[in-house]
Amino acid sequence: VTEPARRRLTRDERRAQLLAIGRRQVERTSFDGLSTDVVADEAGISRGLLFHYFPSRDAYVVALAEDAARELLEVTDPDPDLPPLARLRQGLAAYVDYVVAHRGMYLALIRGASGGKPEMQAVFERTRGALAERVLEGLGEDPAAAAPTLRLVARGYIAFVEEVVVAWLREPDPSPDAPALLATLEAAGASLVAAAGVPPERLTGGS
Amino acid sequence: VTEPARRRLTRDERRAQLLAIGRRQVERTSFDGLSTDVVADEAGISRGLLFHYFPSRDAYVVALAEDAARELLEVTDPDPDLPPLARLRQGLAAYVDYVVAHRGMYLALIRGASGGKPEMQAVFERTRGALAERVLEGLGEDPAAAAPTLRLVARGYIAFVEEVVVAWLREPDPSPDAPALLATLEAAGASLVAAAGVPPERLTGGS
Repeated sequence: VTEPARRRLTRDERRAQLLAIGRRQVERTSFDGLSTDVVADEAGISRGLLFHYFPSRDAYVVALAEDAARELLEVTDPDPDLPPLARLRQGLAAYVDYVVAHRGMYLALIRGASGGKPEMQAVFERTRGALAERVLEGLGEDPAAAAPTLRLVARGYIAFVEEVVVAWLREPDPSPDAPALLATLEAAGASLVAAAGVPPERLTGGS
Repeated sequence: VTEPARRRLTRDERRAQLLAIGRRQVERTSFDGLSTDVVADEAGISRGLLFHYFPSRDAYVVALAEDAARELLEVTDPDPDLPPLARLRQGLAAYVDYVVAHRGMYLALIRGASGGKPEMQAVFERTRGALAERVLEGLGEDPAAAAPTLRLVARGYIAFVEEVVVAWLREPDPSPDAPALLATLEAAGASLVAAAGVPPERLTGGS
């Protein structure tokens, strides 16, 4: 058999390939454990060419974090036609599935955010802000115009979910199981929104 | 009038003096803005003597963070004879009072925890853990033996309170006002505990 001549990757394909290789590496180790030599090797390119796509190791790490955060936001984006509580449930279920499937990357993101690099903190902050806005939108609120208390509670709820999920992932033998964790996160969201003064019928989709 | 000869400070008094001066400085600026020269000057000692008490600038910064965290835990420790909900209310009220009175130091602590230094993160992590245990104790639970879901929710609640209070403090014109914020934090705590399966009568002090 003759192999077809290897097609040169386009710029976008190469970039996507390098991000995918890096993310697999971070998943197994951490951002600190990431070796650009190993990434270049696996892609079959020189380290110099890698730095053509990402001007520095730091820039590459931030691009990996942005790529993971984008994916997290994408896979957890619920169906906008569902009523609020069902949207919350769908988004949370996708979130828990994602962090279980990408445990290493997720913990690396959280550690990266607390690692002091302002660019990593900014990725984290933007992601948290986007998730909080989604909670408000799910309630039919314009995030920019929502009542201050409700906006604070939406942000706080995202911090709550993160803390619970990280503590859960870090246990050697995570308990409760994923469905029970999900039920707790959902009940917590519903009760926090109620504590912020949103009437219960807004959650179930009545108006 | 003749002034009494200036008494030499004991080792503990000197240490406490240096911590108090440093904390006033951090309150006005941040940990990064802290100058050991200015601290030594204000204490009327040499920079060398300051490093006799704290072996390095980093060690001094960690000692300042520990001192502030200890004080925060101290002033927010509620009366153990109160029923759970009243304990929560008393602890939260003291917490909000503290962060409003020590806004600069509190925000510096939060920034410090995300500044990447493992010792600062450890101070933060211990404080968060102690506050979460207090929530469990307030419910009459042994923190080490509490149900996994309730332990996770207690940790998540502390993260919720921190996020809400930091976002609130950072607004140029904080809204809602402090009493309304407090009411929201309290309602959130009560509803989260209920969402974690604790029967309502445990909160009001029935058994």
